[in-house]
Amino acid sequence: MASLKPFPALSRGDKIKIVTPASPIEPERVEKSISLLQQWGYQVELGQHVYDRNHYLAGTDQDRAEDLMNAFLDPSVSAVFCSRGGYGCSRLLPYLDFDQIAATGKLLCGFSDITVLHVALNRRGLPTLHCPMSLTLHYDREPWVHESIKNGLEGVFETPTAAPRATTVVAGTAEGISCGGCLVLLADTIGTAEPIQAKDRILFLEDVDENPHRVDAMLTHLLNAKILEGCAGIVVGEMTRTDEKSDPTIGDQPWREILKERLQPLGIPTILGYAMGHAKNMLSVPLGVQTLLDASNCTVRFQLA
Amino acid sequence: MASLKPFPALSRGDKIKIVTPASPIEPERVEKSISLLQQWGYQVELGQHVYDRNHYLAGTDQDRAEDLMNAFLDPSVSAVFCSRGGYGCSRLLPYLDFDQIAATGKLLCGFSDITVLHVALNRRGLPTLHCPMSLTLHYDREPWVHESIKNGLEGVFETPTAAPRATTVVAGTAEGISCGGCLVLLADTIGTAEPIQAKDRILFLEDVDENPHRVDAMLTHLLNAKILEGCAGIVVGEMTRTDEKSDPTIGDQPWREILKERLQPLGIPTILGYAMGHAKNMLSVPLGVQTLLDASNCTVRFQLA
Repeated sequence: MASLKPFPALSRGDKIKIVTPASPIEPERVEKSISLLQQWGYQVELGQHVYDRNHYLAGTDQDRAEDLMNAFLDPSVSAVFCSRGGYGCSRLLPYLDFDQIAATGKLLCGFSDITVLHVALNRRGLPTLHCPMSLTLHYDREPWVHESIKNGLEGVFETPTAAPRATTVVAGTAEGISCGGCLVLLADTIGTAEPIQAKDRILFLEDVDENPHRVDAMLTHLLNAKILEGCAGIVVGEMTRTDEKSDPTIGDQPWREILKERLQPLGIPTILGYAMGHAKNMLSVPLGVQTLLDASNCTVRFQLA
Repeated sequence: MASLKPFPALSRGDKIKIVTPASPIEPERVEKSISLLQQWGYQVELGQHVYDRNHYLAGTDQDRAEDLMNAFLDPSVSAVFCSRGGYGCSRLLPYLDFDQIAATGKLLCGFSDITVLHVALNRRGLPTLHCPMSLTLHYDREPWVHESIKNGLEGVFETPTAAPRATTVVAGTAEGISCGGCLVLLADTIGTAEPIQAKDRILFLEDVDENPHRVDAMLTHLLNAKILEGCAGIVVGEMTRTDEKSDPTIGDQPWREILKERLQPLGIPTILGYAMGHAKNMLSVPLGVQTLLDASNCTVRFQLA
């Protein structure tokens, strides 16, 4: 594995570049988030193609990739914040130079479809920030959510006491580098040049709008592809609106039951219901950093290099 | 690759064993199909666990796997017909001995979730029959559908003239061994011990109830994992109820447009709308057999060894 780079914490006055590497956004929806980032003391710039639109993609693969590369390589930029997920990052693999991006040591922010980019950068030792998309920063959320993202950008990761607590699936403690993100996107990396690697790591999992049995299928994919072999510990976040997608003709179970049954036999420290994922109220989590999971007490601590 | 085995065509009087390797079934629903198979001249037996039920699975992984193994290894049985898809075959990978199954040279019948088993047997040179699940054989369908499945069991694969015609995506002719099935299950095999192999082959693709952009994502997964490198030709069947699952917030396109845009650049003979998949009216198609695709004239011919 690549040697671990320091977490690219921001300071007031730093410039954040907003790009749209997946699905398209509407200008009026991002303006409030820009104002908020400015209130927090950052300069904000938009990528050239940030408002492009080609059906479910924010412009061509080449243009979205170019915006990402240009943002990271611009010496005046300290962090690259993705405006929206949706779908499209996996299409960029042939057009991105992840070695070059990782060498900049800059901060990538976002989640969901952005998981594909987190995985590729974490593989190269570069920590990233798994946090709300910039499009939604201004949403009305619990104060601890705003506290978590604001602190996270500065490299501070104390879990707010108001955040909901997870429950124990397998007790015990584990230590390793954090990795993961949205389950369906993690599965989409299997067998590619940029696969999720969970060996010796703490794997974070979340998702949205899946059928419960598809959650099983994707976990089974990770198992069948040996991705979970030697995994140190697992932190399951939210699977938002997944039980609502139950298929009665198939006999779907609630996703929490499925995950417990599938993960317990692994016998590694595991918690479920960590405040991470597509829920309105979610923590901002550093990926690619040393992490202490106490599954007995349901605490997660990050030790930044 | 393993040397190609002959297509395991059935004769009147042969015994068909019905098993349920994925999601559970209700007894009353399968009885009519048993009668139909008996009318066609076959003996029919049920696997021991065919009616087991454990939420979305037809019993434990071990029991479903045991039923499959026992069915193939029973000397009195000539074909193993899966009663239903749903979900569950990928969970059986650790419990099945595919080498032993393939050595029996017997016929596997079914589709959808059964794709996982087709892939593993086709990899070993054993042809299989991609056809309606036995649970649904008696459904009211066009006469050519019944003609196709009845003939298919006997190893006869003339496309009925009444079947709908596909359209050309990329013109030209291609020749290779047929492979494929349900796209989401094919993607689930990537990076496992039993991955879909499409090099030098004619790849069949179909699916049901996907978001259109997920069809793109799964194709992109095949592309990123180099599964389509050297593929000889592609036959796209139906993506049933996929446009109905469009997500307006993401700007989903109709799936046919997506597939055309993604597959055209490959430049290999490709057709779209072949009568195969989760539609009520579908052809029964042999997988793992020599196939001639004339994409200019939208014909598919199978040459049984």
